[in-house]
Amino acid sequence: MSMLKRLLIGRPLKSTALGEQKITKTKALAILSSDALSSVAYGPEQILLVLVTISATAFWYSIPIGIGVLILLTALILSYRQIIFAYPHGGGAYVVSKENLGMYPGLIAGGSLLVDYILTVAVSVSAGTDAITSAFPSLHEHNVTIAIVFVLFITILNLRGVTESATILAYPVYIFVFALFILIGVGIYQIVTGHVSPALHVPIGTPVTGISLFILLRAFASGSSALTGVEAISNAIPNFKDPAPNNAAKTLVAMGSLLAILFAGIVFLAYYYGIAPKNEVTVVSQIAEQTFGRNVMYYFIQGTTALILILAANTGYSAFPLLAVNLAKDKFIPRMFTMRGDRLGYSNGIIFLAVMSIILIIAFEGKTEHLIPLYAVGVFIPFTLAQTGMMVKWIREKPKGWVTKLIINSTGAAISFIVMLMFFLTKFTQVWYVLIFLPLIIAVCYQIKKHYDAVGEQLRITTCEPPAPIEGNVIIVPVAGITHAVENSLNYAKSLSPHQIIAVHVPFEREDEIIFEEKWNKWQPDVRLVSLHSPYRSIITPLTKFIDTVQRKAGESNYQVTVIIPQFIPKKGWHNILHNQSSLFIRTHLLFNRNVIVTTVPYHLKK
Amino acid sequence: MSMLKRLLIGRPLKSTALGEQKITKTKALAILSSDALSSVAYGPEQILLVLVTISATAFWYSIPIGIGVLILLTALILSYRQIIFAYPHGGGAYVVSKENLGMYPGLIAGGSLLVDYILTVAVSVSAGTDAITSAFPSLHEHNVTIAIVFVLFITILNLRGVTESATILAYPVYIFVFALFILIGVGIYQIVTGHVSPALHVPIGTPVTGISLFILLRAFASGSSALTGVEAISNAIPNFKDPAPNNAAKTLVAMGSLLAILFAGIVFLAYYYGIAPKNEVTVVSQIAEQTFGRNVMYYFIQGTTALILILAANTGYSAFPLLAVNLAKDKFIPRMFTMRGDRLGYSNGIIFLAVMSIILIIAFEGKTEHLIPLYAVGVFIPFTLAQTGMMVKWIREKPKGWVTKLIINSTGAAISFIVMLMFFLTKFTQVWYVLIFLPLIIAVCYQIKKHYDAVGEQLRITTCEPPAPIEGNVIIVPVAGITHAVENSLNYAKSLSPHQIIAVHVPFEREDEIIFEEKWNKWQPDVRLVSLHSPYRSIITPLTKFIDTVQRKAGESNYQVTVIIPQFIPKKGWHNILHNQSSLFIRTHLLFNRNVIVTTVPYHLKK
Repeated sequence: MSMLKRLLIGRPLKSTALGEQKITKTKALAILSSDALSSVAYGPEQILLVLVTISATAFWYSIPIGIGVLILLTALILSYRQIIFAYPHGGGAYVVSKENLGMYPGLIAGGSLLVDYILTVAVSVSAGTDAITSAFPSLHEHNVTIAIVFVLFITILNLRGVTESATILAYPVYIFVFALFILIGVGIYQIVTGHVSPALHVPIGTPVTGISLFILLRAFASGSSALTGVEAISNAIPNFKDPAPNNAAKTLVAMGSLLAILFAGIVFLAYYYGIAPKNEVTVVSQIAEQTFGRNVMYYFIQGTTALILILAANTGYSAFPLLAVNLAKDKFIPRMFTMRGDRLGYSNGIIFLAVMSIILIIAFEGKTEHLIPLYAVGVFIPFTLAQTGMMVKWIREKPKGWVTKLIINSTGAAISFIVMLMFFLTKFTQVWYVLIFLPLIIAVCYQIKKHYDAVGEQLRITTCEPPAPIEGNVIIVPVAGITHAVENSLNYAKSLSPHQIIAVHVPFEREDEIIFEEKWNKWQPDVRLVSLHSPYRSIITPLTKFIDTVQRKAGESNYQVTVIIPQFIPKKGWHNILHNQSSLFIRTHLLFNRNVIVTTVPYHLKK
Repeated sequence: MSMLKRLLIGRPLKSTALGEQKITKTKALAILSSDALSSVAYGPEQILLVLVTISATAFWYSIPIGIGVLILLTALILSYRQIIFAYPHGGGAYVVSKENLGMYPGLIAGGSLLVDYILTVAVSVSAGTDAITSAFPSLHEHNVTIAIVFVLFITILNLRGVTESATILAYPVYIFVFALFILIGVGIYQIVTGHVSPALHVPIGTPVTGISLFILLRAFASGSSALTGVEAISNAIPNFKDPAPNNAAKTLVAMGSLLAILFAGIVFLAYYYGIAPKNEVTVVSQIAEQTFGRNVMYYFIQGTTALILILAANTGYSAFPLLAVNLAKDKFIPRMFTMRGDRLGYSNGIIFLAVMSIILIIAFEGKTEHLIPLYAVGVFIPFTLAQTGMMVKWIREKPKGWVTKLIINSTGAAISFIVMLMFFLTKFTQVWYVLIFLPLIIAVCYQIKKHYDAVGEQLRITTCEPPAPIEGNVIIVPVAGITHAVENSLNYAKSLSPHQIIAVHVPFEREDEIIFEEKWNKWQPDVRLVSLHSPYRSIITPLTKFIDTVQRKAGESNYQVTVIIPQFIPKKGWHNILHNQSSLFIRTHLLFNRNVIVTTVPYHLKK
């Protein structure tokens, strides 16, 4: 077991090696932007899918809508750049909302993002698996298994540590970007050199019957789903090499520029080629076919696209554990999320993310497409909250140049809010779950915090006065037979408190009682034996009653009651199922229900 | 939880009420013979299913084959009657084989029967459910759920106690017998009064082309599957009112007579009516239709047949727990099977049987028909062994009239052996599993016995010499913070051994170490604190190493090491998941891997 763990995860790292686990800008760009960059594979298509419901003439609207998305992207990037400098320890939307808007908005932002990263992993791995198995149809029935294997692979990489996953995953991301750059470059070259018929596209401004502001906003909201993932860097600042905020900000801007170029390029080519969305072939695939024909380059684009979709999951793995740490430090989720694992990653967060996304993949049988709107809305809620939070901050603090900053965040907040609203208005049937699970998450987090606060309160030493000392000990030893295990326990009891030992036997039959008492008196004449006849064959009930009686008397003279339980430990683990687990039951029952001290005296069997 | 249990199972019974839980012959006949009697619903059909592979002319062979089955039945009944008197404490084939043939034959017989009773429950409930849902086709897709509900119902009845289940289940069994008696009576009356054309059946002795001894033996073996369940009474003798063996023997003879009459009647009517087995309609159903037409009586016969098939499962519930007690007393299976539950039944056996048969039903999706041969062979193995065992007994002991007894058992053994062989020869593809799981069961049982013997050996007090006394105690208290829980533990430690207390702190960071030590020295200046810096963030490893060192030193002067673990107990069970379960891990690890005493000092939170 521990061998296997070592093999998969690697040897443990010292806490002081944490600095070496920080990553450079180049690697960070790869692992934190894979989610955002992969969205260009489906974002432009989403716009066309809405416009096609009117007519092919409406396709020219993709250009102004695309410009709108770019404006939103710019606002988001500038805004998150400000967040990075204002909150350099990470936490992104959660910390910003909590600090500036209060606990509940913070929880809404944090809760949405936690769920969102789980959805990111499930949706992107499923989509990538689909892309691969549509090339090899015989694999199609194994979709769920393949997706789970990918999740496990990414999980193991992340458990090995963020530097290792970054090293391995950086190449595919840059290859994808490179491939799309070639596609866009060659496409534009062909247009410029007149190899593409201008008759393919409808001129901008052509009147379209049936178009409405609602449709345009809907297309805009759909296209904005390409912006999911831009917040990841703000959560993961602690993973960057120092100076972390500067490096994170530069990475964010680099990611924004790449995303803008790729998105603009794909939207433009799709428009110029007059591409209509088809059921079987993606828009990017159609562009690639138009540009290159079905040659090596075409398959190269297809392959890297499938790969980037799977790797988009990695963004979730980088951002989720760090966001969870922030929530756990504020006591909103279990404290275990703040523990670093063997390789200094927050392993509990990584494993939790893996388990939840595998459950989602199994529950939806790998068909997670209709989770996409849910996933988009789960991003735009924190986008809106974070930027509103920043607006409040600027207005409150009024630092140098605050008006510019306020304008940037206000623009971002307004557009994000509109997009979020559009999701609710146009895809309510797919996103209403949010209205159920967000309040649920908030309620659970609130209860958890309340509990932790109450525990802290009760454990804190407030007075310097020491508690009343224990004057002496009464020891109760439940005995089942005359064995070495019992002998051991009695021996120990005698060393603690030779004159206050009571052995307790619980016979089910009167005959057993007498026989046992006779044997006992020969064997341990100096230890008092109490027989508790149990006609209903329960051990716990008569024992508990007896302990209560003893405790009442002992309490009068400040004596403490200790129950010593003899337990023999078999040599092999599976042997445990062959033994009546009475000692375990008695121990758990007493600890949880009575205020007695429980001591286990092990007797190790040698064979 | 305990309310629900009380409601379903009833209030606990005193051990002394055991006598009231014994049952009369009438009730015993009902619950112990339901398995055997229900076999007449399919036994005769099994004979015809083999004969039809030759031709319809061969059907007359069902008469001599039926006589053969009746001879086997007589031999078995007489033989088991002798077993009942020879082994009046029950245990049937297992005890007989073990005592007379040795441990391995005993385990083969006992193991086959244990598996067989699980199969009985799964097969008969599935068959009964099928019979019901074929009347209400819309229920057919819920077969598995319905079957599980029936298993749970019978389980609860049996957990309530054998008398209660007998009271409720006796009626349907007698109604079934009554219904078949009417069917046979009316059928024969119609034949005698000449209402049935004699042209329907082929005269006995008509030459049949293609018939062979192999086919006839195969038909005989198939027909013998109607005899499964006749051994149940010999396992369940302890359930009878005193004098148990006499009552059991009388019940056995009554069951044998009823079974003989019903079997003979059905075989004869099927022959005289010239009934051929059909896929959709059972032979009994065809006879009923011929005799009554499709009137109320027809549906009555159908309904009671479905019911008796389900109730056949109850025979398994009566025999399995008592057989398990015998195996457990001999230490071949875990001791828990000898414990009586709240209602004095062997609840562990009942629950185990229910769980296993539900697993079978789910695994085979309710289609357990092809388990029938497995189930039949699993009965004829112990039949053969039990009777061979009795032969050995008579030859060894030579009591009065032993020659007659020997002849009875020899006949039974020979025929059972032939039937068993026929199953292997003719249905090997369906019964070969037996050759895998029987050796497996025997190996597991053997290992279990070996373990129990080794434990008993090691625990037994063989010398009167007391072990070396413990000269003193060293107490180690792992501490995680300065809290009331720790204060409590230190207070207790001081009461035991004021001068030998070592508090151990495991900091992950050097800074924490210094801060904690300063605080500690102000708070508990008289308790020595040891800091074990853990660069790999493990608590167990440095703690264990430290304990080893202390133990080595303590051992030199006969001092005992006790680890006192402070544990706070939250008010609500679910709160436990919010706390790092370190104390539980430490406790388990130390108990299983080190020879130290572990004491848990609970600190009960009030909110």
